[in-house]
Amino acid sequence: MAKIIAIDLGGTNIRAAFFAAPHPPYERIVKIPTEADQGAEHIVDRIAEAVQEVMPDDTDDLRIGVGSPGPIDPKRGMVLNAANLKGFVNYPLKAHLQEKLEHPIRLGNDADMACLGEWGFGAGVGTRNMIYLTISTGIGGGIMINGQLVVGGAGLAGEIGHMTVDPEGAMCGCGHRGHLEALASGPSMARDATALIQAGEASSLASILTQRGKLTAIDLNHAAETGDELARRVIAKAGSYMGLHIANLAHALNPEAVILGGGVINMGDFFLDPLRQALKQHIMHENYLTTMDVKVASLGDDAGIIGAMVLASQQ
Amino acid sequence: MAKIIAIDLGGTNIRAAFFAAPHPPYERIVKIPTEADQGAEHIVDRIAEAVQEVMPDDTDDLRIGVGSPGPIDPKRGMVLNAANLKGFVNYPLKAHLQEKLEHPIRLGNDADMACLGEWGFGAGVGTRNMIYLTISTGIGGGIMINGQLVVGGAGLAGEIGHMTVDPEGAMCGCGHRGHLEALASGPSMARDATALIQAGEASSLASILTQRGKLTAIDLNHAAETGDELARRVIAKAGSYMGLHIANLAHALNPEAVILGGGVINMGDFFLDPLRQALKQHIMHENYLTTMDVKVASLGDDAGIIGAMVLASQQ
Repeated sequence: MAKIIAIDLGGTNIRAAFFAAPHPPYERIVKIPTEADQGAEHIVDRIAEAVQEVMPDDTDDLRIGVGSPGPIDPKRGMVLNAANLKGFVNYPLKAHLQEKLEHPIRLGNDADMACLGEWGFGAGVGTRNMIYLTISTGIGGGIMINGQLVVGGAGLAGEIGHMTVDPEGAMCGCGHRGHLEALASGPSMARDATALIQAGEASSLASILTQRGKLTAIDLNHAAETGDELARRVIAKAGSYMGLHIANLAHALNPEAVILGGGVINMGDFFLDPLRQALKQHIMHENYLTTMDVKVASLGDDAGIIGAMVLASQQ
Repeated sequence: MAKIIAIDLGGTNIRAAFFAAPHPPYERIVKIPTEADQGAEHIVDRIAEAVQEVMPDDTDDLRIGVGSPGPIDPKRGMVLNAANLKGFVNYPLKAHLQEKLEHPIRLGNDADMACLGEWGFGAGVGTRNMIYLTISTGIGGGIMINGQLVVGGAGLAGEIGHMTVDPEGAMCGCGHRGHLEALASGPSMARDATALIQAGEASSLASILTQRGKLTAIDLNHAAETGDELARRVIAKAGSYMGLHIANLAHALNPEAVILGGGVINMGDFFLDPLRQALKQHIMHENYLTTMDVKVASLGDDAGIIGAMVLASQQ
């Protein structure tokens, strides 16, 4: 049975875990700083160091799975563009890692890896068709169809946060209008609450805004918990957009599960109740809903590293 | 090598074709009236009659593929709801057909079959990830991912025409607002042109509207060809919505090809130029476009029957 070292490459930290068999739990895990500002060559060295730290004595049938930010070209093992990793533009990460590591390597996008993790060992176990959404500063995701990860013809699939939900909606960070990420991410809620308060609406958040000059999604969550009507309304609007979008995706893909991860899910029913209401309102036929679970991700921060293990196990 | 009889079940006609091998061309084809108003049992008899008419002498390894309107539950071989076929509500078509036909049967949705046909032997040959859209009175479609048809957990996938493109847009026939079908189908264009003319705008279509009381998409196409500005504008708006929607689908699925079929495609560049412009405007990264062909379907009316043959060949 394959042994696997799985890597979760982030802009701040690299995590490496050793799995003695292709399933959780891992035997050991390390976390080291990425030092991403020192450039691509250094980042590759850091990954190799993390791998060495968890390397087992017996390396028979050892495989390596890597989850990296940015869109990935799986055929060429190339990171097309990772904003937080200096030098990672059309960067052949797999080839450069392979020079330092003699074991077979598979490379995937980090949100796709979290999707694969939740599908294999988290909230999506047992499904063949599943959509994973991670909702925090941005909105990312992954899609499983017929038991396989959807990467697309050029590795660019799964950009669920960058689908237009409202052509008249707010501008997205990517420069396009009305994307899901511009309507239902944490920063989009902070933006909406700020605008309403600046327009004169009453909220317990007004004093925080005056004091700090800005709001966060965490502020909104606290305010909602203490009964703030404006915070609840803003969160509900974001949840409704998410529900509409899930209905759209269901009509196209009819998944058995939609798994929701990321910090925004900590808002709980303030976000999820309006999401479920909008989903019910926009779905075309109740059969979609009776055959689909919408639930919260279960693996937390380990989803990506477990998914990278699943990817490596499939090679 | 398998021999196949493929069926294209429609509200008006049943077509049955015999393929001596699992590829086009078919050896012979028949078309008989469905007589759909006489109920489900009669329709099953009619299908069996059509099959007998093209039955070969040697029935060794003969398989049957059937494309039917309506969402299909593939596990139970059941047509969930086909509006134009009396009695086809949660109707176990496969089981009833199997009582009359001793050869193995596979059943699929008609738009999915057209998708499979274009993928296997039409404009989508050679792709692993493909989206098929048929744009006429309604908008239907099918999706191929990793070389497999996407049917979803309950057979309800592929309802691409019923994804919301503009939450403030026109009402769809299904009762939901702003679906693609309400913004880019033939009738949606006729509706928009009618509204503009009734609001006093000038168009060569005004006299047709007065004379016949209604417009069709074909009227708009003729008017566009003779230089009518209003007709061109209405068609362009529909094409733009289609382009936006294709950008959305590309971000999620990153297909190698998007294949466009259905009568509206006869509008040619009046529809396709604005579609391509909107696609370019809304796509997040040019890599999506350089790795994706957007092209017109090539099999015409035979797409469905060739797709049903492909489905049967896969069993």
